[in-house]
Amino acid sequence: MQMVIPHWLTKQADISPDQIALQLSDGSTLTFQQLKERSQDYAKKLAGWGVAKGTHVAVLSSNQPTMVIAIHALSYLQAVVVLLNSRLTGDELTYQLKDAEVSFLIYTETLAELAGKLPVSKALSLTAVECLQPQAIDIATEINLDKPFTMMYTSGTTGFPKGVVHTYGNHWWSAIGSALNLGLQSEDKWLAALPLFHVSGLSILIRSVIYGMPVYLLEKFDKKRVHQAIMTKGITMVSVVTLMLQQLLGELGEKTYPASLRCMLLGGGPAPKPLLEQAKEKGVPVFQSFGMTETASQIVTLNANDALKKIGSAGKALFPAQVKINAPDEDGVGEIYVKGPMVTSGYYRNQAATEKALIAGWLATGDLGYLDKEGYLYVIDRRSDLIISGGENVYPSEIESTLLRFPGIKEAGVTGVEDTKWGEVPIAFIVTDDGTYNQAELQAFLKRHLAAYKCPKQIYEVARLPRNASNKLVRRELKKLL
Amino acid sequence: MQMVIPHWLTKQADISPDQIALQLSDGSTLTFQQLKERSQDYAKKLAGWGVAKGTHVAVLSSNQPTMVIAIHALSYLQAVVVLLNSRLTGDELTYQLKDAEVSFLIYTETLAELAGKLPVSKALSLTAVECLQPQAIDIATEINLDKPFTMMYTSGTTGFPKGVVHTYGNHWWSAIGSALNLGLQSEDKWLAALPLFHVSGLSILIRSVIYGMPVYLLEKFDKKRVHQAIMTKGITMVSVVTLMLQQLLGELGEKTYPASLRCMLLGGGPAPKPLLEQAKEKGVPVFQSFGMTETASQIVTLNANDALKKIGSAGKALFPAQVKINAPDEDGVGEIYVKGPMVTSGYYRNQAATEKALIAGWLATGDLGYLDKEGYLYVIDRRSDLIISGGENVYPSEIESTLLRFPGIKEAGVTGVEDTKWGEVPIAFIVTDDGTYNQAELQAFLKRHLAAYKCPKQIYEVARLPRNASNKLVRRELKKLL
Repeated sequence: MQMVIPHWLTKQADISPDQIALQLSDGSTLTFQQLKERSQDYAKKLAGWGVAKGTHVAVLSSNQPTMVIAIHALSYLQAVVVLLNSRLTGDELTYQLKDAEVSFLIYTETLAELAGKLPVSKALSLTAVECLQPQAIDIATEINLDKPFTMMYTSGTTGFPKGVVHTYGNHWWSAIGSALNLGLQSEDKWLAALPLFHVSGLSILIRSVIYGMPVYLLEKFDKKRVHQAIMTKGITMVSVVTLMLQQLLGELGEKTYPASLRCMLLGGGPAPKPLLEQAKEKGVPVFQSFGMTETASQIVTLNANDALKKIGSAGKALFPAQVKINAPDEDGVGEIYVKGPMVTSGYYRNQAATEKALIAGWLATGDLGYLDKEGYLYVIDRRSDLIISGGENVYPSEIESTLLRFPGIKEAGVTGVEDTKWGEVPIAFIVTDDGTYNQAELQAFLKRHLAAYKCPKQIYEVARLPRNASNKLVRRELKKLL
Repeated sequence: MQMVIPHWLTKQADISPDQIALQLSDGSTLTFQQLKERSQDYAKKLAGWGVAKGTHVAVLSSNQPTMVIAIHALSYLQAVVVLLNSRLTGDELTYQLKDAEVSFLIYTETLAELAGKLPVSKALSLTAVECLQPQAIDIATEINLDKPFTMMYTSGTTGFPKGVVHTYGNHWWSAIGSALNLGLQSEDKWLAALPLFHVSGLSILIRSVIYGMPVYLLEKFDKKRVHQAIMTKGITMVSVVTLMLQQLLGELGEKTYPASLRCMLLGGGPAPKPLLEQAKEKGVPVFQSFGMTETASQIVTLNANDALKKIGSAGKALFPAQVKINAPDEDGVGEIYVKGPMVTSGYYRNQAATEKALIAGWLATGDLGYLDKEGYLYVIDRRSDLIISGGENVYPSEIESTLLRFPGIKEAGVTGVEDTKWGEVPIAFIVTDDGTYNQAELQAFLKRHLAAYKCPKQIYEVARLPRNASNKLVRRELKKLL
């Protein structure tokens, strides 16, 4: 079977030239025809700069139309887009850029300072690219679904960031799986306030070009703006994480959303049941879901019919996907395994991590959960020890690794505690050589090496850390030390 | 990328157990859960008979639930389904059965006489299979999209029937391409009156299990029954050929269809413009389309937005597909080439025909057409010489080959003429050795070797046939001999 389809943006521009592709909060819009033309022009300018088929190009930007154009432009060149999380430090991004073998960097002006710290000699701002001389080149007319399109870094439990490679096919199947679950209606419009450098945000763009659906694009999540958009802009779908849902329900107060809002897709970790019940009372159509970077966004989603009767469940695997519990205990709890054509084929240049994660065609998610009698998935722990802070994944092992690099720290254990603002925040427990260490220097050291949301909110010195028989740190026991 | 998905019927039964899968005109229904259970039971009985993975099993039946169950059962066994056209003669079917290496035959009771003429020793009726002893076997839980699922014979222009192999993936992509064009709505219900042994009928079943959509199944096309169903059964989609559309418009008279009917998918050859205009006047949502067995049903379809402004056009290639005109003449007319993951990878055990049809990833359709300035396809000739009689493809070359087998006939040329009832019927021109031949014997001979709808309605004796410089028969000149 040929895994070749026409280029999706060109195709959509051909089918629906005048349909709105992007709508911004200032009222401006881009149709699919305009988005195609601007993306192809942008591709020619990138080509003039030296970007070619297979080049790894990093993009460091907040959500904005030029970022969308740059991403499509890179697909027209068959380059690989490495999406950078703008909340990371220069050190963290440097690691990713080297690991991903990036040779070009495009950044948004407001992140110029961060971009300046990065070891990529060919770096230009999104708008500077527009001033380049275009080069007459052959724009890709087709997409081979087996070819890589994007890369995003995820730390996982090892603490070493790994580059998740998404083929065009992974994104395609994710979009199709979502459509088979949610349906495809001509009036659909998806609000994107999640960062486009995360797969939860990027996947909205891909659905847009495949469905011919407008995206209402916000630079970032702002509860008042999102609320206003849902109330007045004909939004039918919106992707949120728990913290956002909480804030939106606060904004909503005693009002109700327009009936046209048919899906609030909730990802980013298990949601507290009281919050879901509150949403239910207010008639908010929350679709809980489970997914990760490796699955190119949601892979298990609770559908509309079951949303109310299965509150707390992430639902069933999307049509082309499967979910199972590996080695369940007597209560049926075990590691969640998933499978499907939206699942990544592996981590960039990291055979060991790939082999550890992909087992006989299944992705071992590292998350714990169980299936009820009717086969609905319940996620117990978002990865055994993962902390979700304001929708961002915080990996204890990464913070521990950083702590251990500081002089005088012998052992370190990190866990999350509840936080009214961020949902969860990390706290650390350390064992020192002799009970003395420079606290101010440690704070500065952490700030230099970790994004702000990863810096432990409290650091406790303890005599020893909880460990199991094989001397492995038992993170879930850490809180007992408080 | 893994081309493995869960078994589509099992998956749909898991997601929507109580949703109706099949609805019959007698009011009875089968839910997806019931359809799955009956299909799996049927699979176990077939296994008890000896059907196994990879076995080629022919199905000879009119549209009925047990046929649907048998088809799904065979997919659970990973057997290959060879769908037989019940309108063919024993001779014609025998050729197909041998070519397809069929070892088992399942037939419906009303076709027992025809089935009895066929050289397959293991043959049972659909209901006889239900009385077999089941065998405990492992039912397939997954579908590998690259594996063959069905085979259907098409004669093409060579006159030798060729077995078009459809993988699961061909059917999958066809269903997805259709959904991206027509949308997916929870109230959808598709009426199937076209034979399930044609891909136009079978593709409705596949869409049903992938979308979770009920099929309203009729044993055959009957204008009154179809009309009644559309008027009263909540039908939203129906597949028709030109002749059916004509008859339905007659039934409709001055009435209008319910607003819930959102698509009348028209295939099976170009439709006369007056008919399309009549449909437009009556507000019937006709979607013209272009496709063939090799493309697993429609591959080019006019969408709802363009239906009225592009009357006469077959539209644009479905989202995952492409269309182009090969070697266009000065008017832009040339052979229609199509490409996409729904296109067959080739003909069974026929490398020569496969290489002739599939050229650098494109399928040469043999049909002539052009694209207008906006890229809409207009089909001029449904294959250069193909005759469409009552929705059935009639290949002149096949009739010519048969005529030439009759003693005394030296040359033969067949073409179609308009017919008020069937749209078109074949007529033949022959050159004989000495001007004498036994007309009654010829009629009997043709009747024995050709389906009734293929037998020429008139046979004219002529002195010579129109031929081109290379002495090739020019069929389009035949009518001038009248």
